[in-house]
Order: sequence, then structure tokens, then C-alpha cells
Amino acid sequence: MPYKVLIDRHLGTLNAAVKANNERHFHAHWPEPPSGKIYGETANADGEAAFKAQLNSAFTGLVQKATDGQVGEEISPYGFDLGITYPHDLPETLAARATTAQQKWQRLEPLERAVILIETLERGAKKFFELAYATMHTTGQGFVMGFQSSGPHAFDRALEAIAMGYVAQTSFAKNVRWTKPMGKMTVSIDKTYRIVPKGTNLVIGCSTFPVWNSVPGLFSALVTGNSVIAKPHPGAVYPAALVIGSMQHTMQEFGVDPHVVQLATDTVEAPIALDLVKHPTIRVIDYTGGPVFGEIVEREGALRGKLVMSEKAGVNCVILDSTADLDKTLDNIAFSLSLYSGQMCTAPQNIFMSELGVLVEGTYVSVDDVALQLRTKIDNIVLNEKMGPGTLGALQNPRILAGLREAEESGLDIIRPSSPLRQPGYDGACSVTPLVLKTDPSRADLFEREWFGPVSFIVTTKSFEQSLTMVENSITRIGALTALVFTVDEEKMQRAEDLLTIAGAPVAFNLNSSVWVNQSAAFSDFHGAGHNPAGNAAFTDLSFVANRFNFVGVRRQV
Amino acid sequence: MPYKVLIDRHLGTLNAAVKANNERHFHAHWPEPPSGKIYGETANADGEAAFKAQLNSAFTGLVQKATDGQVGEEISPYGFDLGITYPHDLPETLAARATTAQQKWQRLEPLERAVILIETLERGAKKFFELAYATMHTTGQGFVMGFQSSGPHAFDRALEAIAMGYVAQTSFAKNVRWTKPMGKMTVSIDKTYRIVPKGTNLVIGCSTFPVWNSVPGLFSALVTGNSVIAKPHPGAVYPAALVIGSMQHTMQEFGVDPHVVQLATDTVEAPIALDLVKHPTIRVIDYTGGPVFGEIVEREGALRGKLVMSEKAGVNCVILDSTADLDKTLDNIAFSLSLYSGQMCTAPQNIFMSELGVLVEGTYVSVDDVALQLRTKIDNIVLNEKMGPGTLGALQNPRILAGLREAEESGLDIIRPSSPLRQPGYDGACSVTPLVLKTDPSRADLFEREWFGPVSFIVTTKSFEQSLTMVENSITRIGALTALVFTVDEEKMQRAEDLLTIAGAPVAFNLNSSVWVNQSAAFSDFHGAGHNPAGNAAFTDLSFVANRFNFVGVRRQV
Repeated sequence: MPYKVLIDRHLGTLNAAVKANNERHFHAHWPEPPSGKIYGETANADGEAAFKAQLNSAFTGLVQKATDGQVGEEISPYGFDLGITYPHDLPETLAARATTAQQKWQRLEPLERAVILIETLERGAKKFFELAYATMHTTGQGFVMGFQSSGPHAFDRALEAIAMGYVAQTSFAKNVRWTKPMGKMTVSIDKTYRIVPKGTNLVIGCSTFPVWNSVPGLFSALVTGNSVIAKPHPGAVYPAALVIGSMQHTMQEFGVDPHVVQLATDTVEAPIALDLVKHPTIRVIDYTGGPVFGEIVEREGALRGKLVMSEKAGVNCVILDSTADLDKTLDNIAFSLSLYSGQMCTAPQNIFMSELGVLVEGTYVSVDDVALQLRTKIDNIVLNEKMGPGTLGALQNPRILAGLREAEESGLDIIRPSSPLRQPGYDGACSVTPLVLKTDPSRADLFEREWFGPVSFIVTTKSFEQSLTMVENSITRIGALTALVFTVDEEKMQRAEDLLTIAGAPVAFNLNSSVWVNQSAAFSDFHGAGHNPAGNAAFTDLSFVANRFNFVGVRRQV
Repeated sequence: MPYKVLIDRHLGTLNAAVKANNERHFHAHWPEPPSGKIYGETANADGEAAFKAQLNSAFTGLVQKATDGQVGEEISPYGFDLGITYPHDLPETLAARATTAQQKWQRLEPLERAVILIETLERGAKKFFELAYATMHTTGQGFVMGFQSSGPHAFDRALEAIAMGYVAQTSFAKNVRWTKPMGKMTVSIDKTYRIVPKGTNLVIGCSTFPVWNSVPGLFSALVTGNSVIAKPHPGAVYPAALVIGSMQHTMQEFGVDPHVVQLATDTVEAPIALDLVKHPTIRVIDYTGGPVFGEIVEREGALRGKLVMSEKAGVNCVILDSTADLDKTLDNIAFSLSLYSGQMCTAPQNIFMSELGVLVEGTYVSVDDVALQLRTKIDNIVLNEKMGPGTLGALQNPRILAGLREAEESGLDIIRPSSPLRQPGYDGACSVTPLVLKTDPSRADLFEREWFGPVSFIVTTKSFEQSLTMVENSITRIGALTALVFTVDEEKMQRAEDLLTIAGAPVAFNLNSSVWVNQSAAFSDFHGAGHNPAGNAAFTDLSFVANRFNFVGVRRQV
């Protein structure tokens, strides 16, 4: 095989990822701490310098050359224009280059594609710190989260997708002599099975997780032989451009047409996502983002017989029934509500409690007491000068602040008011602390929709049963990416598991440590619903990869 | 496990099927000869008696009870009304029963579902001969084909789907203790992964292969925990009813709600397929049948976010370039054109030759000579009194004869005229011999569409290259389920393989024995395009089963 050097280098990595996918145990190819001991003592300073050097200039890290000028309009949620421009190409240009690039790419062996893609990741990993700053200043994430979400965690998701796609392609014999007994004779046919990719994939990214949410589709597409056009959100191009640029350079070095993966750019004023969705070259679409545009993408894709894999948004719920340790429980919830100001598709929004309150070691703690304690727990995080700013980050765009204002004016009881938060060193940052409201099922019109950002609702119900039914219905009708239940009652736990998983949401029970419901671990947690209105895709299951290619048989008479 | 007796009985069968799926070698769980030595000396007589007893009476073989009267309008293509009526239920009734039945079914282990389903097949296999007569007298197939296509070949396809679905569900750990190192500490979460079916599947059948084309979807749906509603074509209900009735009785005996698989019936006047497609309970749709209605099903399903797996129709092409043995080559093509009067989605229609003719051992045989010899080969089959009637069978419906008449009047050169054929014992049978026309690329308007039935075209081109390009374009634009190329030139063979498989059609080379391009072998050939306009599904690949369920995770704090 021509890529023997890469096979030797990365086969161990691939096999470990395949094993982790199968066994679902903890696995991390790239360590998550943004530590100089791991990534090199100058890595942070180098990354920050690269970031600063990139500001107010054209991005030149791509192999791809602009054919239609430059565009760029990113604004840091920490309060300044990035001033970076990126190559712009028309959909027709991108599609033509993708088609050409796929010709040779699809003829490689799955193992060759897998190790080339792992090589692109290893090279890309050298930019984790610049990627962290790029992510921070496009999404509003805090630095550590920016590092982890676009760096090690995203790259592990990419590796997971490579491994799953590799397995899906190699589970069957590549060829066989098929011999059929026919009475006293036999007849033989030599058969081979060719892997034929569906055709160019389009990956539409979002403004909050421009790498983490896009690489599963990107790498699933590529490992199964497709070319890819990645169209990031115009507000968060930089992190995607870094990853794709690194991929293009690696591809080129190893003799692969670098246009097998391309960056598509646009502006809010002149978007091109829908033109790409409708373009006949595009056969598969990965979409992450808001549900309104998501439904348009799903419909326009489906009408043209294209496969659309979506992760939109839902409303994530918590049921607080009983706990052995209310402190740890509320610490956990408070952090989940605060982390990146609720701007995660997995963040909880509605917290259901029965009007009796929460049973703690045989005694009910009233809803008002629990609400007050939760407020204090949030205060402890967000008002802590060391912890608060980095945990909350900044609001990605002004619409999120507008949503918060709308919630404040809803007339519901305010358990915890939101207030501006100073981000040290960034006077223009748009940062606020979480708003917590209190209501009951009569105001389902308000809380049974997504309030993206730092808005949550405590909902007081008649009983655990009512809470459970409401959460089940909410998952079925509106969708959800996570559900979180606190109960020490094994029977309730079983019923909740049964109803909520069948409704289609992953469920977590009694989280009380440094694992939060917002988190989804590569190689272990199937992320995304795949099964409710929040989206039809899951990172990374078999269907996510197997839908992107076909086995096409060849029979030769012996 | 409660189904231990079935596991003991069928685990070997399941494992052998899994192995065959992986290795793609010849495998047949049920022997294909309709022989008394295999199936019992009285099996044929018993089957025929059961068939005759069923005529002109209500079908009572289902557990399912009618809630909206009886319907039935089947006519044997051999010239008589079957006079059978079947229970009719409204979509709402079917949907409600399916939802209830799925509750318990989806909670079984994949292995339990697999062995219960194998048991239903073993029981159903006892009716192979009645099924053969039922198939013959609804589809028009000859007896042997009716036996094989609805009996052993279909049941092997069902077993293949069970095995593939079982593997897709069991490739990952069911549970794991996930332990993450965090500096000097660790944090552990117990995880389980629940298999959650997408929801009730709808299988819409066709009038020519009412069992073979429906069981892959039916059994893929069931093994992955879904309930199923099967809606056969109103002209071919009997074979489906036999299979489903047998399944329902087996399910009931083993404590499974028999409505986990239901028969939906309708009439040509009052069809219910589209009502079912639109019904919110239906989440996945398998469609086999004509492209016009197929596109409506695809669109209406897609607009509602449903997964549609389709096998419609295309135009299958043959390229005749060179051969070492023209006799065997033309024998093979002649049989493919004659078998079931071209009423197979895999049957060839357009036969491309360069104007130089066909190169045979260094000498060109002219197109006219080849055409004449092909005519003789067809005559040898269809005018042979022992072989002809059974090979051709009868035309399933009058529209097929009307298509033939239209072709006859197209003005193209007639190489072989069609004439009526007597089916011994059935004076009213609608049987005709194949029509072969000759044309050139200028009449692509005529031959580049599907002529379902015994109509084929010899197309004379400038060169092999032109033939190949035309076939490639035809696959890409109109779709195809098969392609067949005869060439002794290894370089041409490679180019044809490359272009045609990438266009998305399975390709066969130089078939010259008792394997025909029409045939598709369970466990070995991925049937269906999956990759071109003829349909998006393939029997049975990973995506065909993996799309029907999700892994939904459960996390518990340790």
C-alpha cells in the first residue's frame, strides 16, 4: 500500500479507537488539560501569538485559493472585531473542485483514508492553542473550554468517526469466490464489493461549537470516500479554517487533492448554505444549528432525495425527586446551568420538582428552599472571580441577550436575577450571570420552548409522576439532547429510564461529581438524540457512517 | 432468558447466517429445489390442495381480526379470479395496535427477537408449496420460480436481514463502567446503552415479488424492535397473508403480541398506502414498486421526517463487446430476457453493441448476425413446450401487455416479434413471448425509459466507448439495478467496472452458465442499487438495518 508509512505510524491509534468504540470505555487520544507539560511549554504563548498575528489580516492557512474575493465579519463576544477575511468561492466552484478531488480519494482503501485522516488530526493538534483562542473569540467560550471543545474533545470525536467508518467499511469480505452446488455440478462466480461513496457531503456548522459539532460529519464523510465542503457559521469561521487548512496541507503533502475538503464561506447578508444544500453535487448534508433553519435544510434536502443528518436543538429537562446529598446535587446542577452560559445544546433548561419538594434522607426540603440553595450554588460559581468568568464565557451574539431580557419580562418569579459580569481584560465582553425563574405547568407555553442561553425554569408540579410525564412529552414533542434525573428510588429510576429513553433522550442519573449532563464523551456516549425532534443524527453510531457509502458488487464468471 | 428453547434451537442458524453475511460466500438455509425428497413427498399435493381450498373464500390464517370488513380482488394472471377476501382495517386501527404491540417487543433482547423471528420462518417454510401456488397465481410467475422466489430465496433474504440486524445491535458493549482519570482522582459512571426502535415501520409491497421484496424490510424492522404494518399490492395479497399469518400464530404461541406484524389491505379503488405513509405512527417506510408512486412516497415521507427505503425501478443494460463463446453468451442473455417475461426489476432491457459487431475469437460477428442468433436462442427457450411456459410465466396485469403493444408500434426494427403463448391447463392465461427491437442512440427517447415486461432493445453504437458512456449516463440519470458486460478485454473490463460501479450499479461480467444477471443471492449479493435513482436501499447492508433504531445512553453516577 502506498501509504505504508502512515499505516505504520497510526494503525495503533486506529485500533485503539476501534476497541474503545466497541467497548465504550474511557478513551482519550489527546489529553484534555491545556498544559505546557503535555503540549510543550511554549505552546500557549505560541498559540496566543499566532492568534494575535492573525487578527486584522487575511487568513492564508488554506491550500484552497479564493476565486470570488474574501469575506469575513467575525466579532469576538469578548468585544472586538477579529478583522480576519477568508477566501470566498461560489457554490459552483466548490462543487466542481469537490467532484474532481473525490475521484482519486474514493479509490483509496478504507485503511489508507483512515490513516491519512489521522495524520491530518495529529498535525492539526499542533495548533490546539491557537484553536483555543480562535474558538474563545468566535463562540464566547472560556479559554479552557475553547481548548477542550475544539481541541482534544473534538479531535477525539473525529477519531471516533474515523474508526467507526473504517469498521463499517471493513466488516465484510472484500472479495469471495462464490460456489453454488447445483446437483452434481457447481457454478462459481468471483465477487468483489466496491465501496462507493454517496457523493460530496456538505457540513453546515454552528456558531457555538464550530469544530466539535462539525468534525464527526466531516471525518465520517471523508473516511467513507466522500469529498466534503464545510460551511461554518459566518460568525465562527476561524476555528474551522484552522482545522481545514491543516487538513489541506497534510493532504497535499501526501499526494491527495487538497480540495477533498474545502472551506465554504459566506456572510449573514449573503448566505450560501441553502444554495449548497440545493446543489446537485451535494448528496449528504450534516447540519448543526438552530431548528428553524434546520427544518428548512431538512425539507429542501429531503425533497431532493438527499440524506440530511441533523442536530438542531431541544429543551433539556431535569427532574429533582430525591437525593442522598443535596449539596452535591445542586453543585452539579448549578455548574451545568453556568457552563458557557447555557449555550450548549446539552445544557439543562427546565428543572422539575414536585410541590412537596425534594426528599433528602427521609425529609422533604421545600421547593423554595431548594431554589434558594440553587441560587447560592450558582452565585458561588459565577461570582467567584477565579472561576466565574471562565465558566460563563461570553454570549455568542446579541439575540441571546434579547432572549434573556424577554424571559426577565415574562412576569414569572425570579429566583436568581441575571446581572452583567466583567471579563477581566475584556471590557467590551458581553457576559451575564444565569437567570433562574420559577413557574408551574400552567405556563408550559413559556418554558416548553428553547431559551438558548443562561435562562432556566424551576417548574413545580403535583408529583414526580407529573414531572416525568411532562418531561416525556417534552422530549417527544419538542426534542431534547439530554435528560437528568435525581432520585434515590430505584423503582422511579427504572420507570424514568424506560420512559425517557424510549421517548428518545439519553438519561443521566444522580450526577454529583465532576461529570456534568452537558458533557458527552467520545468513544463512549452516543451524542445527539437521533431519535426525537432535536435531530436525527448521533455521534457516532453505525448509521451515521454507513449511510454515506454503498457496497456495489462486481461479479465475474469463473 | 425466557426464550432459551428458541435460542438453543436457532443459535446455530443465526451464527451461520452472520458468518455468511460477513464472508459473502454461498449460503442457503432453505434448499431451492421444490422437491418432495427435501420438503416431504406430499408437500406439493398438500400445498396445491390448500391453495384450491382457499380459492373463493375468506382468508382465515391471520390472528389479526378484521375491524372494517373484508376486501379482495386478486385475479390470477393465468386467467381466473381468486375470489379470496382478507380482513380490512383502517390505518388508525392498524397504527394503534402496532404501537401497543411494540411496547413489549422492543424490550426483548436482540437475540430473543432474532430467534423468535427465525422460528416464524421455520414455521412459515412448512407452507412453501401453498406459497408457490399463491405466488404463481398473483404474480404470474411460473411454478418453480414462485416456489423459489417466495419460499427459499425470500426466506434466506429474511434470515440475512435478521442476522445483519442482530450484528448491528450487538457490535457494541451493552454496558460499561466508564472511569475517567482526573489527576490524582478518578470519576466513574455506569453506562448502559438501550436499543430504541425508531417506531412502527410500513412495508409497501409490489405485485411481482410480494414476498421476496418485502421480507428484508419486514424482518429488519422487527429484529431491531419495531412493529410492522405490511401493505401488499392489492393484486398480490395472498402470499404476504400466508407469511404474516404464520408469523402472527408463532408470535402468539410464544407470548408476543401478534399485532407486532400486521397485514394492511386495500383495493385499487380505495388505496390506503398514502394514508399510512402520512400517519404519524409510521416512522420508517420500505417501498418496492413503480417509480411514479415511489417518488410520491419518498416525498411525502421525507417531508414528515420519515426514513424511506426504496426500491423502484431503473433500466438495466447489457454491453456486448467480445466473448470467447458467443453461444453460451447468447444462451445466458436469452434466458435473462425470457425469465418471468422480463418482469423482474433486475432483468436486462437495453443491449448495446458497437456497429462493428461482437468480437469472437479474433473475428467480428456482425450486429445483425448476433441479433439473429439471439432471436434463435430465445425461440429455443420459449417455444420449447417443456421449458417455455414455466420460464415465461404470465403477464401480471394488462398494463404490461399495453406497454408491449406500444413498443411494437414504435416503428423500430423488430428482431423478434412477440406472440401469444399457451399455458397448458390455463386457457385464460395472458402469456406472450419476448419482443426484441433494434435501434441506435438517436432513439434514446424510446429506450432510455423503463419498459416493464418482455420488451428489449438492441442498440447499435459507434464503439464500446460510446456504449459504456451511454450505460453510465443511463445509470446516473434513470437508475439501474444491474448491469451486464461481456468482454474478454481486461482493460475494458476494468474501465467498465470502475465507471459503472461508481455510477452505482452492480456489474456482472461474462455470465455464461446457470447464473443470470437477474438473480441476486442472499448473504452474498447486495441487492438494489442504494446508490442511483432506482432506489436508495440495498438488501441487506448495515445502513438498511442500522437506520431503524438508536442507541440511547443511560448514565448513572457510581
